[in-house]
Amino acid sequence: MGAKIKIFDTTLRDGTQGEGISLSVEDKLKIAQKLDELGVSYIEGGWPGSNNKDIEFFIRVKELGLKQAKVTAFGSTRRKDTLPENDANLNRILEVGVQAAAIFGKSWDFQVHTAIQTTLEENLAMIYDSVRYLKSRGLEIIYDAEHFFDGYKSNPEYALATIKKAEEAGADWIALCDTNGGTLPHEISEIVAAVRRAVKCPIGIHAHNDCEVGVANSIAAVMAGATQVQGTINGYGERCGNANLVSIIPNLQLKLKYDVISDEQLANLTNVARYVSEIANMHMPMNQPYVGTAAFAHKGGIHVSAILRNSSTYEHITPELVGNKQRVLVSELAGQSNLVFKAQELGLDFNTNNQQTKQLIAQIKEMEHQGYQFEGADATLELLIRGAYGHLEEVFTLESFKIMVAKSEDQPVVSEAIVKVKVHGETVYNAAEGNGPVNALDNALRKCLMQYYPGLQNMHLTDYKVRVLDEKDTTAAKVRVLIESSDFQSTWSTVGVSENVIEASWQALVDSMRYALLSQTRAARQLKEQQREQVGLINH
Amino acid sequence: MGAKIKIFDTTLRDGTQGEGISLSVEDKLKIAQKLDELGVSYIEGGWPGSNNKDIEFFIRVKELGLKQAKVTAFGSTRRKDTLPENDANLNRILEVGVQAAAIFGKSWDFQVHTAIQTTLEENLAMIYDSVRYLKSRGLEIIYDAEHFFDGYKSNPEYALATIKKAEEAGADWIALCDTNGGTLPHEISEIVAAVRRAVKCPIGIHAHNDCEVGVANSIAAVMAGATQVQGTINGYGERCGNANLVSIIPNLQLKLKYDVISDEQLANLTNVARYVSEIANMHMPMNQPYVGTAAFAHKGGIHVSAILRNSSTYEHITPELVGNKQRVLVSELAGQSNLVFKAQELGLDFNTNNQQTKQLIAQIKEMEHQGYQFEGADATLELLIRGAYGHLEEVFTLESFKIMVAKSEDQPVVSEAIVKVKVHGETVYNAAEGNGPVNALDNALRKCLMQYYPGLQNMHLTDYKVRVLDEKDTTAAKVRVLIESSDFQSTWSTVGVSENVIEASWQALVDSMRYALLSQTRAARQLKEQQREQVGLINH
Repeated sequence: MGAKIKIFDTTLRDGTQGEGISLSVEDKLKIAQKLDELGVSYIEGGWPGSNNKDIEFFIRVKELGLKQAKVTAFGSTRRKDTLPENDANLNRILEVGVQAAAIFGKSWDFQVHTAIQTTLEENLAMIYDSVRYLKSRGLEIIYDAEHFFDGYKSNPEYALATIKKAEEAGADWIALCDTNGGTLPHEISEIVAAVRRAVKCPIGIHAHNDCEVGVANSIAAVMAGATQVQGTINGYGERCGNANLVSIIPNLQLKLKYDVISDEQLANLTNVARYVSEIANMHMPMNQPYVGTAAFAHKGGIHVSAILRNSSTYEHITPELVGNKQRVLVSELAGQSNLVFKAQELGLDFNTNNQQTKQLIAQIKEMEHQGYQFEGADATLELLIRGAYGHLEEVFTLESFKIMVAKSEDQPVVSEAIVKVKVHGETVYNAAEGNGPVNALDNALRKCLMQYYPGLQNMHLTDYKVRVLDEKDTTAAKVRVLIESSDFQSTWSTVGVSENVIEASWQALVDSMRYALLSQTRAARQLKEQQREQVGLINH
Repeated sequence: MGAKIKIFDTTLRDGTQGEGISLSVEDKLKIAQKLDELGVSYIEGGWPGSNNKDIEFFIRVKELGLKQAKVTAFGSTRRKDTLPENDANLNRILEVGVQAAAIFGKSWDFQVHTAIQTTLEENLAMIYDSVRYLKSRGLEIIYDAEHFFDGYKSNPEYALATIKKAEEAGADWIALCDTNGGTLPHEISEIVAAVRRAVKCPIGIHAHNDCEVGVANSIAAVMAGATQVQGTINGYGERCGNANLVSIIPNLQLKLKYDVISDEQLANLTNVARYVSEIANMHMPMNQPYVGTAAFAHKGGIHVSAILRNSSTYEHITPELVGNKQRVLVSELAGQSNLVFKAQELGLDFNTNNQQTKQLIAQIKEMEHQGYQFEGADATLELLIRGAYGHLEEVFTLESFKIMVAKSEDQPVVSEAIVKVKVHGETVYNAAEGNGPVNALDNALRKCLMQYYPGLQNMHLTDYKVRVLDEKDTTAAKVRVLIESSDFQSTWSTVGVSENVIEASWQALVDSMRYALLSQTRAARQLKEQQREQVGLINH
């Protein structure tokens, strides 16, 4: 196995500078958890000296108890002509109590003069003082040399002088940043090799994708001696994005045999990529390398017949290594292992050879083909699996519903729903208001069911996401609705797909209620069994 | 200026093997015209021996009178154990009367045995015979060595033998194909250099993007001696797509100073990329390098204030060179400079010191605080800014709307809307169906307005995103709705925020219509002014 390469994830900081991305603190915490499971070494959580919202993240992330990733704060070198101990941005980093900090400073003489408008000497002092100050307080320091490659091309001596200053001050890493994203791979190779000869400090690479070579640049840097790669999940970030870690990690590990994350963690890559795209509410292109739904999808007839004989004829890796799967668009014959694993997880006797199993597999594939996505909707999947084995009772059936939404001039919108369902053979009819058609429907349905299932009392929607599926005109496009529900003890997610957003929402709502009721029923049954056992023990 | 590099465009052939893409003959002809204007040297139009639809393209494309691109047909080497003159696929190429043909054959011994199941010698004969046959009929021949890089790594002597055979038979080009997309740039460099030493024939490169290094591989090949690059517009193609010509061309020409297309043609790159994405009905990611709407969009406050002083601080090229433009985003991360820039862009006299400006800035910050996001909603922002300076006429006012959504048992959901608005003092009342409440509302509103504004005819929703804003219980949570609309010439986005998703959608819809109408009015006014000027000039 090759050298160990550490992944520095900046999805939560640089990634949020991308257009259309805005993460709440809750979103960031959820993503941080996933990143830690993936095996990244550093999670850059934000810029506390610039965004107050980030301070909350740094405080609350401590409760997550991350297993291996070091939470890192981003910040600038001290302001010119200021003592580091008087610099608010540096002090904010200390206040939020992180293990590591990434400090950025100028390496390009042009930038020193135009952007921060100071002298080359003062800039060197800014670098030295800032790194020294934070090191003296016990932090691990990654020095981000901003615009390094442009700076090196313009004035190599000064560029090297800046990073040597950082090394002198005790920096643990020197990360070379291609901030404008305009450098090409052969230039990266050359310059990183020069830096490798000039400093002893471990080197990192921070590439951007403005020339569509962010991944290639990161790999070139590693091959020239860098041992840290900075990037984001799915390449989110300012302008054309940061280098995409989701492509870099398998390239380094599977192709170049570097030691990046464990095989189990790599097999979780597709899940993590899709999870983050859902949380960020960003469309994942189906043709995204390694993890896209079409990454291993074969359409051409010749490809398909060859593939069915031997996958390596048209696949550069085995999809399961990154948690993806082969899809054959003529006839779907992909693997069953994921489903078997899931069923076993639920404690079901899952015989892959029997008819029920084959039917279930076919049903799930068909639903996925229509746009259902089960990764963010575990509860829907569980209902499907249990249903296939006849373990599900029908808790209610729909007779009809009507929703009315009305608005006059400057009055707020009023939304009402009437729902008619059959529960235990009896017809129940109820109406409710809501702050939107789906909320009204949810309230009316729950009113109907609560008469029979008081346990639904605490259940409520905590998140609601709508995604237009086709990239075409939305007139006939399908939408996918993901609903997250909670009852203060647990949280579960369900999914619905339809051309009609209310139909899709209804499916997800119904699954959500069914899941809640079945869980409660199962929990009650388990409790009774435990009590019977205890009574049995006492009686013996 | 550097060496001349010829672009071989296979958008209409390999590009169509991507999931979700299907081009009619009309679509292909429109794209071919644009490609010719862009300056590509070869347009691979299809595979006549495999798809009858392609035959029609090859016949009709002659009527276009393309100026410089050579129309090329794709096809396979002859079937094993068959004479070339008896091979239907080769003969079809001759029948459609093209100037050039790209013939693909095996270079990987593994493929010869498993995929086509023949001997290594027969494969060499297949290559020789096919190239010889078509050359003797006067065609320019590009020999596509399929799986070349995997083949070379497995058995370099055989791989070289196959392309030498093609050269011997008279091939004008040897294009080395990384068919599985699994090769990395340093390997491409090495292998292309080896081929450069082994053959005299000009070399082409055909890369795929399965490792997200398709562009880097193409560049590496050119630097190692290739003078033809095969790829597709926007990287369309099977699995993760072909190498993206839209990134390769500016990289080669602007960065590496090769002679690819003219400067005027390069300045048309963004138009061509967006046009093709519209025809192909594929969503163009906003962060696509060089041509994406966010490729030169700056969000971070520090970036923006630096940019306004000097663009090269955060831009690797001048956007206009590829027909794109700089954008400054107004967001929570922005400073006042962003807003000033935007107003200036709109041609408004924006004095940061006057009362209107201060009020507008305060209003925008307050709206952002409530959840409005202006980055993905340029049109809403523009309306706000223009409104602050009293430049907006009220195009219509709402009197009332009602939406009804109904579902019975297993019937699909039905959605209808009734809208009552006042236009030019007159009350207009109309109803429409839709595939959801918002779609029905959109249709009904447009029906009302089209009587007065027929220009709304082509307008339609192209994307719709709902985001729950607070991380809390959604009962009182706000939602943000982002709507993207298009009229085939331009695209614009609007935003709405409310606790009620219909209210939020209504806001975004109304802004979308207002924006469309105001743009049309302004365009008409500008046209009148230009005509007046011309008349004035004539009269002088």
